[in-house]
Amino acid sequence: MENKMEFQQLLPHQIEEKSFEIIDEELKEMGISLKPEEAFVVKRAIHTTADFDYASSLVFSPGAAAVGMEAIRQGAMIITDTNMAKSGINSRQLKEIGGGQAFCFMADEDVAVSAKEKGCTRAAASMEKAARLFGETKEAVSENKVPKRMPVIVAVGNAPTALAVLCQFIQEGSFLPDLIIGVPVGFVNVVWSKEQILSQNQVPYIVSKGRKGGSNVAAAIVNALIYQARQDIMI
Amino acid sequence: MENKMEFQQLLPHQIEEKSFEIIDEELKEMGISLKPEEAFVVKRAIHTTADFDYASSLVFSPGAAAVGMEAIRQGAMIITDTNMAKSGINSRQLKEIGGGQAFCFMADEDVAVSAKEKGCTRAAASMEKAARLFGETKEAVSENKVPKRMPVIVAVGNAPTALAVLCQFIQEGSFLPDLIIGVPVGFVNVVWSKEQILSQNQVPYIVSKGRKGGSNVAAAIVNALIYQARQDIMI
Repeated sequence: MENKMEFQQLLPHQIEEKSFEIIDEELKEMGISLKPEEAFVVKRAIHTTADFDYASSLVFSPGAAAVGMEAIRQGAMIITDTNMAKSGINSRQLKEIGGGQAFCFMADEDVAVSAKEKGCTRAAASMEKAARLFGETKEAVSENKVPKRMPVIVAVGNAPTALAVLCQFIQEGSFLPDLIIGVPVGFVNVVWSKEQILSQNQVPYIVSKGRKGGSNVAAAIVNALIYQARQDIMI
Repeated sequence: MENKMEFQQLLPHQIEEKSFEIIDEELKEMGISLKPEEAFVVKRAIHTTADFDYASSLVFSPGAAAVGMEAIRQGAMIITDTNMAKSGINSRQLKEIGGGQAFCFMADEDVAVSAKEKGCTRAAASMEKAARLFGETKEAVSENKVPKRMPVIVAVGNAPTALAVLCQFIQEGSFLPDLIIGVPVGFVNVVWSKEQILSQNQVPYIVSKGRKGGSNVAAAIVNALIYQARQDIMI
């Protein structure tokens, strides 16, 4: 635990380094060793929340973090279910690395209208909009009308209904994102919605098992992928 | 714990009600009873994080929540240290209740310039901007040149340096917000910065003791005050 009485005069990047050192030390003390290919994601989730539960609750499909980084290098569009998650993503670096961009459709007028018409949540309607914009266009592709779609990462930090709709799309084959970050937080339908993602094997995922998660965690995971992708390029 | 295998078909407001019922039940099971005048804030922080630690870590100066609600009814300006916290605040309801507005100066050009010149963090410089815009103008007031300043709530979810600078302003008497929400998260200087706020008695505060907090928690606390202020008006 940080010494309460002492202020440490450090530059922002030194504070970040020091924080990750403390996280490393405490994980070691807890006897937790993370897989190297996932550790940078888990540690950034802990850094964002000061909650070591993420060391055990974050579950990755095999190679999920590498898939996410490659998508970002290829210019992935990042779709979030809250403007809060979107605003937590380092959009400048995302753009610099591969030209990607972050979107949230929750506050869009057409999403509100569509949710009302269909009697679904705006979060679900916002995922439908994402599918419409970035979903598979197999016929079009086979007819050579459009290039293969661009990579897409969906990061859900709030709405279980967003994950539920994504599972439908996966089953239908209509929208298969490159990676789903499924970290909604809450007490109702949250655990259930994560289990839905965990029980499919068509789309790579990073999921926080249990109730915890949030827009901040969703953004932190995206940022971890961005920063590591950048570092790998710079090496 | 939520039954994993069952999806509950509920409307958004029903999900929220059900969530708060579960939180109430589990607090009871843990033998925790919250003060009625603070409970709605604590429970919304738990609702946002699924983390019951906030039941013990959130500390209120006497009457702090009531002060916050009154400020909101009087049109309080809410200053945050991250755009993420700002975007998590229900600005529509904030405006409806008292005409208040949420601000974050972190991305402002003049804040970046000022931080560079002074060798401080942008978070600290953004608080200086807040003080400049909304700080005490005692001379002006005594000379009847301007009306009494409008109420201000500062909500810090990220930067310990923001809290440190606020403490300076309080000591100097140059900027005394109506309420400080001090919930930065992290491993370096975070506990220290919160202790600084807890050790003064001029400005009411809501602080999360220890390392935990975040932009999401800052926004949740502001929203709890907004929703309760609204409810009290409607009764």
